Amino acid sequence: MQVTRGQISLFLCLLSCASSLGTRYTPDWASLDARPIPEWYDEVKFGIFVHWGVFSVPAFGSEWFWWYWKGAQNPNYIQFMTKNYPPGFSYTDFAPEFHAQFFDPDEMADIFEASGAKYVVLTNKHHEGFTNWGSPYSWNWNSVDNGPHRDLVADLGAAIRKRSLHYGLYNSLYEWFNPIYLSDKQSGFKTRDYVEKKAMPELYELVNRYKPDLIWSDGDWEAPDTYWNSTGFLAWLYNDSPVKDVVVTNDRWGLGCYCKHGGYYNCADKFTPGKLPDHKWEKCQSVDTISWGYRRNMKLSELMDLPSIIKDMVYVVALGGNYLLNVGPTSDGMIAPVFEERLRGIGAWLKVNGEAIYATKPWRVQAENATVPVWYTSKSSTVYAIFTSNPMQNSFTLSAPKTSNSTVVTLLGNPEPLKWAPLQTSGLIVLLPDLPFTPADAWTLKLDEVA
Amino acid sequence: MQVTRGQISLFLCLLSCASSLGTRYTPDWASLDARPIPEWYDEVKFGIFVHWGVFSVPAFGSEWFWWYWKGAQNPNYIQFMTKNYPPGFSYTDFAPEFHAQFFDPDEMADIFEASGAKYVVLTNKHHEGFTNWGSPYSWNWNSVDNGPHRDLVADLGAAIRKRSLHYGLYNSLYEWFNPIYLSDKQSGFKTRDYVEKKAMPELYELVNRYKPDLIWSDGDWEAPDTYWNSTGFLAWLYNDSPVKDVVVTNDRWGLGCYCKHGGYYNCADKFTPGKLPDHKWEKCQSVDTISWGYRRNMKLSELMDLPSIIKDMVYVVALGGNYLLNVGPTSDGMIAPVFEERLRGIGAWLKVNGEAIYATKPWRVQAENATVPVWYTSKSSTVYAIFTSNPMQNSFTLSAPKTSNSTVVTLLGNPEPLKWAPLQTSGLIVLLPDLPFTPADAWTLKLDEVA
Amino acid sequence: MQVTRGQISLFLCLLSCASSLGTRYTPDWASLDARPIPEWYDEVKFGIFVHWGVFSVPAFGSEWFWWYWKGAQNPNYIQFMTKNYPPGFSYTDFAPEFHAQFFDPDEMADIFEASGAKYVVLTNKHHEGFTNWGSPYSWNWNSVDNGPHRDLVADLGAAIRKRSLHYGLYNSLYEWFNPIYLSDKQSGFKTRDYVEKKAMPELYELVNRYKPDLIWSDGDWEAPDTYWNSTGFLAWLYNDSPVKDVVVTNDRWGLGCYCKHGGYYNCADKFTPGKLPDHKWEKCQSVDTISWGYRRNMKLSELMDLPSIIKDMVYVVALGGNYLLNVGPTSDGMIAPVFEERLRGIGAWLKVNGEAIYATKPWRVQAENATVPVWYTSKSSTVYAIFTSNPMQNSFTLSAPKTSNSTVVTLLGNPEPLKWAPLQTSGLIVLLPDLPFTPADAWTLKLDEVA
Amino acid sequence: MQVTRGQISLFLCLLSCASSLGTRYTPDWASLDARPIPEWYDEVKFGIFVHWGVFSVPAFGSEWFWWYWKGAQNPNYIQFMTKNYPPGFSYTDFAPEFHAQFFDPDEMADIFEASGAKYVVLTNKHHEGFTNWGSPYSWNWNSVDNGPHRDLVADLGAAIRKRSLHYGLYNSLYEWFNPIYLSDKQSGFKTRDYVEKKAMPELYELVNRYKPDLIWSDGDWEAPDTYWNSTGFLAWLYNDSPVKDVVVTNDRWGLGCYCKHGGYYNCADKFTPGKLPDHKWEKCQSVDTISWGYRRNMKLSELMDLPSIIKDMVYVVALGGNYLLNVGPTSDGMIAPVFEERLRGIGAWLKVNGEAIYATKPWRVQAENATVPVWYTSKSSTVYAIFTSNPMQNSFTLSAPKTSNSTVVTLLGNPEPLKWAPLQTSGLIVLLPDLPFTPADAWTLKLDEVA
Repeated sequence: MQVTRGQISLFLCLLSCASSLGTRYTPDWASLDARPIPEWYDEVKFGIFVHWGVFSVPAFGSEWFWWYWKGAQNPNYIQFMTKNYPPGFSYTDFAPEFHAQFFDPDEMADIFEASGAKYVVLTNKHHEGFTNWGSPYSWNWNSVDNGPHRDLVADLGAAIRKRSLHYGLYNSLYEWFNPIYLSDKQSGFKTRDYVEKKAMPELYELVNRYKPDLIWSDGDWEAPDTYWNSTGFLAWLYNDSPVKDVVVTNDRWGLGCYCKHGGYYNCADKFTPGKLPDHKWEKCQSVDTISWGYRRNMKLSELMDLPSIIKDMVYVVALGGNYLLNVGPTSDGMIAPVFEERLRGIGAWLKVNGEAIYATKPWRVQAENATVPVWYTSKSSTVYAIFTSNPMQNSFTLSAPKTSNSTVVTLLGNPEPLKWAPLQTSGLIVLLPDLPFTPADAWTLKLDEVA
Repeated sequence: MQVTRGQISLFLCLLSCASSLGTRYTPDWASLDARPIPEWYDEVKFGIFVHWGVFSVPAFGSEWFWWYWKGAQNPNYIQFMTKNYPPGFSYTDFAPEFHAQFFDPDEMADIFEASGAKYVVLTNKHHEGFTNWGSPYSWNWNSVDNGPHRDLVADLGAAIRKRSLHYGLYNSLYEWFNPIYLSDKQSGFKTRDYVEKKAMPELYELVNRYKPDLIWSDGDWEAPDTYWNSTGFLAWLYNDSPVKDVVVTNDRWGLGCYCKHGGYYNCADKFTPGKLPDHKWEKCQSVDTISWGYRRNMKLSELMDLPSIIKDMVYVVALGGNYLLNVGPTSDGMIAPVFEERLRGIGAWLKVNGEAIYATKPWRVQAENATVPVWYTSKSSTVYAIFTSNPMQNSFTLSAPKTSNSTVVTLLGNPEPLKWAPLQTSGLIVLLPDLPFTPADAWTLKLDEVA
Repeated sequence: MQVTRGQISLFLCLLSCASSLGTRYTPDWASLDARPIPEWYDEVKFGIFVHWGVFSVPAFGSEWFWWYWKGAQNPNYIQFMTKNYPPGFSYTDFAPEFHAQFFDPDEMADIFEASGAKYVVLTNKHHEGFTNWGSPYSWNWNSVDNGPHRDLVADLGAAIRKRSLHYGLYNSLYEWFNPIYLSDKQSGFKTRDYVEKKAMPELYELVNRYKPDLIWSDGDWEAPDTYWNSTGFLAWLYNDSPVKDVVVTNDRWGLGCYCKHGGYYNCADKFTPGKLPDHKWEKCQSVDTISWGYRRNMKLSELMDLPSIIKDMVYVVALGGNYLLNVGPTSDGMIAPVFEERLRGIGAWLKVNGEAIYATKPWRVQAENATVPVWYTSKSSTVYAIFTSNPMQNSFTLSAPKTSNSTVVTLLGNPEPLKWAPLQTSGLIVLLPDLPFTPADAWTLKLDEVA
Repeated sequence: MQVTRGQISLFLCLLSCASSLGTRYTPDWASLDARPIPEWYDEVKFGIFVHWGVFSVPAFGSEWFWWYWKGAQNPNYIQFMTKNYPPGFSYTDFAPEFHAQFFDPDEMADIFEASGAKYVVLTNKHHEGFTNWGSPYSWNWNSVDNGPHRDLVADLGAAIRKRSLHYGLYNSLYEWFNPIYLSDKQSGFKTRDYVEKKAMPELYELVNRYKPDLIWSDGDWEAPDTYWNSTGFLAWLYNDSPVKDVVVTNDRWGLGCYCKHGGYYNCADKFTPGKLPDHKWEKCQSVDTISWGYRRNMKLSELMDLPSIIKDMVYVVALGGNYLLNVGPTSDGMIAPVFEERLRGIGAWLKVNGEAIYATKPWRVQAENATVPVWYTSKSSTVYAIFTSNPMQNSFTLSAPKTSNSTVVTLLGNPEPLKWAPLQTSGLIVLLPDLPFTPADAWTLKLDEVA
């Protein structure tokens, strides 16, 4: 069916967009990897990751609950179930408790928008296989037939787009316990029933139906990309899908792909490069350092606080990455206030310091141990030096920037230009005003006309 | 995969069983309809039908609960749900309550055996699509992933076979709300995704895994057999499946098929022919006249009592049919005592009168309004005249049998031969003893050496 | 409060019914035991006992579920809970599942009426302490605050009385796990908090509110009647309560009371005397021989069948007792069809044979081994000889009755008088007609004008 | 029983503590009001209020859920129930969902201790009547028989006391829907069954069993103190109870009592006096400004942030009050991280500024509009000036303090004494250092040797 749609759109293209035909991609990595990442992605810098699913019901341990319980047979999970549920209670029995009764897409999107994020990525389906829309390929195991009885992908998407944010969808290729997948796996991935009957029809349908700006692929690692036919899918996605011009993808498309093929690189979860990478990348990070899904028993000490989030984001942006910060809604459909507080805190900081983040490029130097550590970003001849601890003194020394007579230094959020003086060779010393209090504990010096 | 298995067995057959190749069936009705029905089926006469599924949880109205509620939007069902369940409660939410915690396959099989039935047909999957085994094609919508967390098809089957009863499986071709089926239906059945991805792979797997002696096909009527590829399946079933020599099927294989194609004929539910059909047939009938599935609120007046069941069975057997009597287990896994009582009552009657039922053939006359109505069955020169009401007099007149000097008349269950005298032309008058009391209210005169 | 009401009614009585003041009872057994049992009770002979409560939800083992589980710690019950419920699940957690959603008082009362019973006794509160009405003394542990959210005592009562049946209420004095009771028990019943704050205020309220014709007291045996103040209650009940003229009670009013004090005697459960007692008595018996409360996993072999019930009832009535036959409704509010069938079967039998039961008196001989065993009842000069097995012969000999010329013998249900002849000394031989079939397997010879 | 215990302790007292007999209280307000409040209470200043009960399960609207739903019939509550629960669902049906499965008393007490609070007050029973211990007077409506199946009062108490914090218990006198209470109310409080059978026996037992340092009485307002027999209880509490020397109470002891009788004054909820009261008082305030019980759908904007809490506490302490800050645990037994963050934030601030709070007395001036508003507290000749906004300038003027040569001014948390100069008449100007950043946004100037 999808092939047919593809053929139709190819046919339409032959009539109307002949000129772009020169850029059609072939289903091989050489061709696909050469596709430039659509520009919007590098400019937005900061996004929100949303892990929501049946795992939000036990809300214990992590979103890998099912796996730890039944796959790894982790004693903590087994004990949790033994103590709190009847024998024979199965993971599917959690689904009726996924109520989402307080879910108001506009309220949730308001919080995301207030954070200053420019894109939002929702799990349309995690490794549990439960789809947050009524996938015909996942009958009776999705949010329309079960639990919320609602198309969460559509409803959140509409609210996100109303706010002009980009909307991405996370998609797990494998499903831990899908028997057809397990049968393929059993065969050493020589059979491909799961891909042909489930994974790919569903993914094509997802793209056609929801037109995501970004596909955050995951769960690829047990099988080679040839099993998944990832290159076939991506060629269609880039050539013929309804989002061919705008869509961004990541790099999880089969065993050995990550950090190597696809769109931007996620590499491993929470991967943080030590120096400037030569390929666009993204760091995903969860406010709850222990889980991507909501946990009912999370404690404050397990959560990132606002300063550490800002520090992390600044580091990532300085090194050319995007920062995708995760929060897990409750099974009731709420963003916990402690998450909301961090998100609004980021937004407040970005309102003042956003010009040092959005649409910037890495500078020739990314970081420096100045008076306190600083991270650099840049926009043409403007350089931003962001420092994430209070220097507790009035003069601030930077050694990398090369000043000129026209150099102007300001503190973002402070109207007056600051007094400064060049140092020998390179660098400058700046006279800081009283730093405005911010719970984010980070400030930006803007240096116009430096080199 | 199934095709491959078929090819392998074909190949093995080419090597080893060439002689039987002369009887291979081709996937067309002319060939398939010509297959003789395996003999065991006509001999057994009486079977138990078992409707068990998620519908056993609401246990209200009928096993078509889902359809009446959400498809037909029958006000009784809507009101039942509105009054007793929260808004947004969905049919899938019943599945966790399908506990089957008291299900003891041996105890259930004991009851079926005690009824005198010689075959048992279990719903492996009703129109709701829920499979009573862990179908890989019905992930998270089956009795292993959900509810009982148990392979009901296997467990009951083992107990049935331990008692040397035949084991059949009911299989609904369509699934009311399966979105892939609905999409095919939408296309006027031009697409066949549901058949190729779900219905047929599952059915082949079912046969290979459980080796049923009988397939009771159903839910075929919305689409032609070409949609279902019924002839392809039956050709495989008769030629190459592990049950090719023993398996019996019915006639529900596509719109227009019933009463015309396949194995024996069920025609419509509870169909009862007015005269002797020329094709083997079966009447299925439910003790609960209102539902095939268990109903929590059934009343005595809605149930068949023992005499009416016996009457029905005798009629069917006299007309060459098999009688498949249905009981619906509770979601707890029990046969309600009121059903058990009827089943044991049938068994008690068959213990005395069984020789007039099992392995009989219709006689040249099937029924006669004698002193009271009688139904005839026969075995070579023996004729059985079964009467299902008490004549309340000592002499009993039969007009159809042609007696001879060697004719002997007995009442089954009574050791002494009875006195009788021939009537003019044909027929005889028999002197009845005191009829032994039986709650079944039916007795059999056995006439040896009549014509 | 009750004392006050008592005083008011005493006062009113002083004004208007002075003449009856001569029969006031004093709160001691000598006086109370001397009260004649209101006549209706001896006449009705047959009643229905209804055990319904939270125990109907687990519906496993027996209505003593809580006790066997938590008190006796019976391994079967512990295992049942361990296998089917989460750890920490408590008995109170069953209450929300007591839905009674199908409870239609008129339908239930129809069945009871159809059984030929003339009184119905409902458990208003079993030992679990859960009241089937909104007792203010059992807040949040009653059928109005919990589960059915309905006054079951009132609703069934109205339907029973609409049919002119008598309505009795079972009342457990003790409550296994009521902490105030346990504290009194701990004190060796020296403190009486439970009686003063709970048991008695509630019982007075029950009587004032529902005006029962019969109080079936139970759960008395751990403490002496002085603890319960039973004589005080009974004196009020007989002198001043709204049911003083009609109410009947049994004999469970404290340790050592049963078979000795109170109204009629129940003695132990299912007590059956060997010979004619000199005090009015009642045998209570359950169709389910294992439990008084409904069991979801009951099997046919555990239930009394119709003939054994009739036999039991006939025996009891012949010995001057009343027969109180128990059925336990489901937590859904239904009488299981297997119970309904027995009840309607009794009714059918009583329709023919009822004159040998209702309003009869024991005869000078209660039983005799005649052709088959017979039980005698009588009404002035008419004697009924009931036999509960088919004699399988036409002549029937009775030796106790003394015939005269005016003696007439009939078979109940048969219009024609029977032929008979006197035997030497005493007794007679009767010529039986063909016995009409009855699933109850019992018939009555009516002998008018015998001695 | 309680009277008896009282009599025993009175007797023991006659033998051993004769001297204190001079101070026995009589059950009238003149005597009771004259009792000095035990000193610890005025010293601790800051406590945590914990609202936990069945209302934590719906966790919607407020802890008055039951009342708003069934009493006031507030449409929001009715709609919430209608949309999310089945018809006939009752408040008692929430109790089984009160699991408290993550409740670790030590972890919870750690958070309370970390807040700097010196006392913790737990709802042992709110107006719903559900007791958080196994009250024998509230059988099957308490946390031991239901839900958590655990003595929450004991378990939290042990952890609180292990940390040397004081432990108080909130106790609602009335219970909205207790039928015995309603019956008394119906009588215009002429009958007192509820008080005698329920409220008082339970309260005495509570005190004897848990020995609370503080009783936070509530729910008194519908009836006069004579109905409650509050003076009788307090006389026992002050004279003979096991906590007679240490216990503190508030002022809610009957209609018209608050702000007038009892121990310290709460007056109305969240009452805040405009000027220094002449009686010890306490302000209770909830972090969630909308509810005292946990709400699953709370939003950040509805919660107090740290600066506003600190501001509120400082105001209260300056005016001689105690500050009792409320958090509602979840039904799972957790303190939401957003609450934990505020509590730890208060603790961090008190670590630096606590000496300006604990064991202080109001100063002759309580507040002043200085450079920014300041609040004063004092300890003998030391005065603390607390300001809750950043003056954003280096000099700070105070006009109320009268300095001398020996006056020393420091900023709490800053080791160095500050430069200052006296102003004309009275007052001083202080040279501030850079204010250390604190998310509490409040700082303290300590002035030694001022008048």
